[in-house]
Amino acid sequence: MGLADVSKRILLGRKLRSSQGERLLPKRVALPVLASDALSSVAYAPDEVFIMLSLAGASAYVWSWQVGVTVALVMVAVLASYRQQVMAYPSGGGDYEVAKVNLGPTAGTTVASALVVDYVLTVAVSISSGAQYAASALPFLVGYETLFACLMVLLLMALNLRGVRESATYFAVPTYAFITAILGMCAYGLVQHLTGTLARVESADYIITAAPGYEDPLTTGALIFLLARAFSSGCVALTGVEAISGGVPAFRKPKARNAATTLLMLGAIAITMMISVIVLARQMGLRYVDPDDINRLRTGAGDVLPEDFAQQPVIAQIAGAVFDGFPPGFYIVVSVTGLVLVLAANTAFNGFPVLGSILAHDGYAPRALGSRGGRLAYTNGIAFLAFLAIVLIIAFDAQTTRLIQLYIVGVFVSFNLSQLGMIRHWTRLLASERDPAARGRMFRSRVINTVGLALTSVVLVVVLVTKFLEGAWITVLAMAVFFFIMRAVQRHYTRVSEELAIADEDKVMPTRVHAIVLVSKLHKPTLRALAYARATRPNILEAVCVSVDQEATDRLLDEWDMRNLDVPLKVLHSPYRELVRPIVDYAVEIRSASPRGVVAVYIPEYVVGHWWEQLLHNQTALRLKGRLLFTPGVMVTSVPYQLRSSEAALERANRAEREMGRVHPGDLRRGIDDDRDGDGRISQVPR
Amino acid sequence: MGLADVSKRILLGRKLRSSQGERLLPKRVALPVLASDALSSVAYAPDEVFIMLSLAGASAYVWSWQVGVTVALVMVAVLASYRQQVMAYPSGGGDYEVAKVNLGPTAGTTVASALVVDYVLTVAVSISSGAQYAASALPFLVGYETLFACLMVLLLMALNLRGVRESATYFAVPTYAFITAILGMCAYGLVQHLTGTLARVESADYIITAAPGYEDPLTTGALIFLLARAFSSGCVALTGVEAISGGVPAFRKPKARNAATTLLMLGAIAITMMISVIVLARQMGLRYVDPDDINRLRTGAGDVLPEDFAQQPVIAQIAGAVFDGFPPGFYIVVSVTGLVLVLAANTAFNGFPVLGSILAHDGYAPRALGSRGGRLAYTNGIAFLAFLAIVLIIAFDAQTTRLIQLYIVGVFVSFNLSQLGMIRHWTRLLASERDPAARGRMFRSRVINTVGLALTSVVLVVVLVTKFLEGAWITVLAMAVFFFIMRAVQRHYTRVSEELAIADEDKVMPTRVHAIVLVSKLHKPTLRALAYARATRPNILEAVCVSVDQEATDRLLDEWDMRNLDVPLKVLHSPYRELVRPIVDYAVEIRSASPRGVVAVYIPEYVVGHWWEQLLHNQTALRLKGRLLFTPGVMVTSVPYQLRSSEAALERANRAEREMGRVHPGDLRRGIDDDRDGDGRISQVPR
Repeated sequence: MGLADVSKRILLGRKLRSSQGERLLPKRVALPVLASDALSSVAYAPDEVFIMLSLAGASAYVWSWQVGVTVALVMVAVLASYRQQVMAYPSGGGDYEVAKVNLGPTAGTTVASALVVDYVLTVAVSISSGAQYAASALPFLVGYETLFACLMVLLLMALNLRGVRESATYFAVPTYAFITAILGMCAYGLVQHLTGTLARVESADYIITAAPGYEDPLTTGALIFLLARAFSSGCVALTGVEAISGGVPAFRKPKARNAATTLLMLGAIAITMMISVIVLARQMGLRYVDPDDINRLRTGAGDVLPEDFAQQPVIAQIAGAVFDGFPPGFYIVVSVTGLVLVLAANTAFNGFPVLGSILAHDGYAPRALGSRGGRLAYTNGIAFLAFLAIVLIIAFDAQTTRLIQLYIVGVFVSFNLSQLGMIRHWTRLLASERDPAARGRMFRSRVINTVGLALTSVVLVVVLVTKFLEGAWITVLAMAVFFFIMRAVQRHYTRVSEELAIADEDKVMPTRVHAIVLVSKLHKPTLRALAYARATRPNILEAVCVSVDQEATDRLLDEWDMRNLDVPLKVLHSPYRELVRPIVDYAVEIRSASPRGVVAVYIPEYVVGHWWEQLLHNQTALRLKGRLLFTPGVMVTSVPYQLRSSEAALERANRAEREMGRVHPGDLRRGIDDDRDGDGRISQVPR
Repeated sequence: MGLADVSKRILLGRKLRSSQGERLLPKRVALPVLASDALSSVAYAPDEVFIMLSLAGASAYVWSWQVGVTVALVMVAVLASYRQQVMAYPSGGGDYEVAKVNLGPTAGTTVASALVVDYVLTVAVSISSGAQYAASALPFLVGYETLFACLMVLLLMALNLRGVRESATYFAVPTYAFITAILGMCAYGLVQHLTGTLARVESADYIITAAPGYEDPLTTGALIFLLARAFSSGCVALTGVEAISGGVPAFRKPKARNAATTLLMLGAIAITMMISVIVLARQMGLRYVDPDDINRLRTGAGDVLPEDFAQQPVIAQIAGAVFDGFPPGFYIVVSVTGLVLVLAANTAFNGFPVLGSILAHDGYAPRALGSRGGRLAYTNGIAFLAFLAIVLIIAFDAQTTRLIQLYIVGVFVSFNLSQLGMIRHWTRLLASERDPAARGRMFRSRVINTVGLALTSVVLVVVLVTKFLEGAWITVLAMAVFFFIMRAVQRHYTRVSEELAIADEDKVMPTRVHAIVLVSKLHKPTLRALAYARATRPNILEAVCVSVDQEATDRLLDEWDMRNLDVPLKVLHSPYRELVRPIVDYAVEIRSASPRGVVAVYIPEYVVGHWWEQLLHNQTALRLKGRLLFTPGVMVTSVPYQLRSSEAALERANRAEREMGRVHPGDLRRGIDDDRDGDGRISQVPR
């Protein structure tokens, strides 16, 4: 106990009060905190576009900027829709709330399933991509990306279990550094281009052989399918934009307006970065293929690349070439990119537990997800997220490209349902609103959401068609599983609370109490249990002994007589040497003779302090208590007798707790005031 | 629960009544049952003698029969000593009892440690040797001996957990078959020898190169050391003779005399078999080396043997040659040998749990070793033995020769201490005995035991000197560990029982009962707990709620007012969101205000039926109960509320139990009779 507590203390830090929580963020801080996820997609979205186009060889890269611009258009539409949502639902419930309120619990649960999958994938994708960047700067990590990614997830988990309260300001720095570094690199590249000094990336000399089915000349159908695939991969750039709509309560007032403005800023920055990177990469002659298909990348002479060739991510290749004579530039770009990817994963660690607690509150998730630990963090949610992310990372070998196939579906499912919800929302408001100006605004908002829905539903279909067999089916399956789990959990809680609801006949007192004290030997714990049981003045009091060994029973009976104990001792014979069953059967027997009465079973227990001491004593009491819980009309009382070694254990536990929480013994004692007021209710003023 | 019970039923069979146990054995059945361990050593003792002599090359085999005869002499002395012991201690306590009674608890514990090690090694050695024989008959087992041996141990464990009651008769058959097969084979070999047709074993053409230090010509010192090593290895033939002295209570009357006669028979058979095998092997030109040192065995031309060469045990080689034209003869000999080795291991599975229960009864071992399961078997002891044996088999790769280095020390430690105990026994009796005839018998017995002690102590020294570095140190270490564990366990039990012994002030009734009912929500379980608590008529009754969420607490307080519950509700504020600690502190608070009173904590619990349902409910009650056990002056009452799903679970559990034990519902109910007699004691006549 002591050791576990101390390590918990080191891992988690001091406990925090419930009031030590909230802090509101100005826009300049909220942007980096909430948008790091969305912005970080620039680290992998261009790569995915180039990978998909490369199926038809490097010549297909002529389409890259058109694909980028299409993705940007969708992003504009989605951001515009979210601005409407932020204004309408400033409570931070996000897509889940919008869907639940406007479309009903089934849609809400669907969105929730999609979001759960999303959060897990956000961690898996961001950390995997981060590991790729880390490996491009630190070559000794090549080949150990999976291990490194898992360790990073564990580190994030530990940080979040501590509760990263002071994080806001710390988060701002790397996100701004990332924006500055990427845009600065692109601007510098543009200057080099204009002055004719722009270098070519290292992969520029390679050639790409087309994949089977995409050989020159491409049929129109194949070209459209290729562009659709590239586009749907590029849409991964949209992941994370929903974070701001969930973070509205963290903004300073006017919350909704500030959040909407931040969304606008996010869109402008993300689109600029993505288009710049795509255009620059194309200018620098980038060649980029699926790492699973690396053999399609050949040297200029058509030879296979060496075994130890490691394809660097797009931004790393650009940085390497742009800052050719200035290595620090390369390292700065790569490290801030890696850092912002970690921050993006951290966004999920903030968002998922909150979603979990909302779901727990609504009865769709186990209550354990809704309780905050000593450091105010939702411990269980954080651990659950880390576990699933690590499973995914290991299953997909930390390969960003393969994980992204799973990622986009979930995002667009929740986009679609929340847009649909918003349309319903405006329609409902329009039905009652009479003021023409307000109606005009609502009409406009509904149009925006309708355009958004139209676009995102097309994207969803494209994504499903192009990605289903590539991995999206896993997401769909996982969503279905979460959906049915949530429904089952909700049904369970509903059933339990219906069963537990108070009816009028429930206030009836039991007519009589039949107390039985279990006796195995005659020693102090037995006497104490007898005394305590007698102090509760039951209608009938008897001692009961289960006889598995006639000799021992005879000895007990003799001693019982000798001690003149004025409680009758009943012997239950147990021919099969069972201890639990005869007692349970006896209790059932008594109860069935007097169905309105209560059987009170008193169990004398002596308590030892060490685990190895517990091994030396039969754990029958525990089994018996577990079994009696299932027996109606029985209450089970443990009468503990503390041996000296248990006192030492208690002292150790108390000391550890005091040290952990810096709670002084008097602290909590003072917390209990007998503020008895007239109505017979003792309550206490919070300090 | 249901599934576990059903598989337990399949594995273990129906439960047995305590009375379904005993059965007395005539000598002709007792011999095979109790002596299979001792007789089975013939399967490996000659091998060990040949292995040790082979250190100096095959020429040293001239000493083999002298070594065999010396071992036989020691065996005669040991058996004679045991005959005395059997007559003096017919209760079956064996060496442990003799040492404890005559030499005190320290010697008793030492013998017990030696016996524990012995039993484990009996299983490991017998099964490993059995695996070797199995591999000699079934070549596909070669290389898988360890796996096969472990599976055999698990099989024996399962059989013994079922309780092999019907075993006696079944055991007789293979043991007699083994005796017949070995003696028959030797007799047939003798006939062949006399008619000049005795074949040579397959290894007869090989040569053995001497080990370093034993090259020709051998110094006298080296020869003596070699013979001592061979002798001490041969002494493994003595293992298992103590089984009969522990089995006296199983004999028919006159128990002691029958047991003594059986010992005599055992000695005659074992010695005949061992000497015959050694002499025959030598006549047939056997070459046999340590399997770890197989390269010292060469072809006649001096070449190394092929990679896949597997050296067969001595008896298998003899059988192969003697029954050269009659393969069934070979298979019969090898299979009955394997079978009898399994029976020998089974002896340990019978003996160890009984020793464990005696030790548990004396307070030297955890009580769990002393309780018999549903099938009358000492479940924990059987599992413990199987576990340790498997550890040894894996650690020593199922190599009989290496395990035997560990085996002999423990056996001779207990031989020595029990002989010493017997001498003390006779000396004590002589001090009070006056009848000359009886004194004469006692003198004679003391002389026999003294000779036995002299011989076995020499052997112990020889064994320690020749085997210490070969592995005996492991045994000594293990014995020391078991010794100190037993002492620590005994000290613990003594301390606990001293602490628990009743003093006069212990009958004092608590002055007042302060009952607190824990409330988290207002639902049926809470109302039931309040009603039950009120039914116990405490001096003070209050409801207590720990507030971690002000909103929920306010709702609870309002509802409490609304329902007009006439019990005051106290709110304990918990700024660190802990649930357990505030309650514990409050209980301590109450208790310290009234040290002679009792705090009765009532915990409403609702009980669900499935493990997955339990995941959906916080397990705070369990943690709280665990913690309150350590708090003096507190008794903890669970007031369960059974949800419908728990009733189904109870029904399932009951059905499974009924099917397992064929106990019908009425069966146990009828078992409880209210035989109230005048003295206020309700007792019950055993059915």
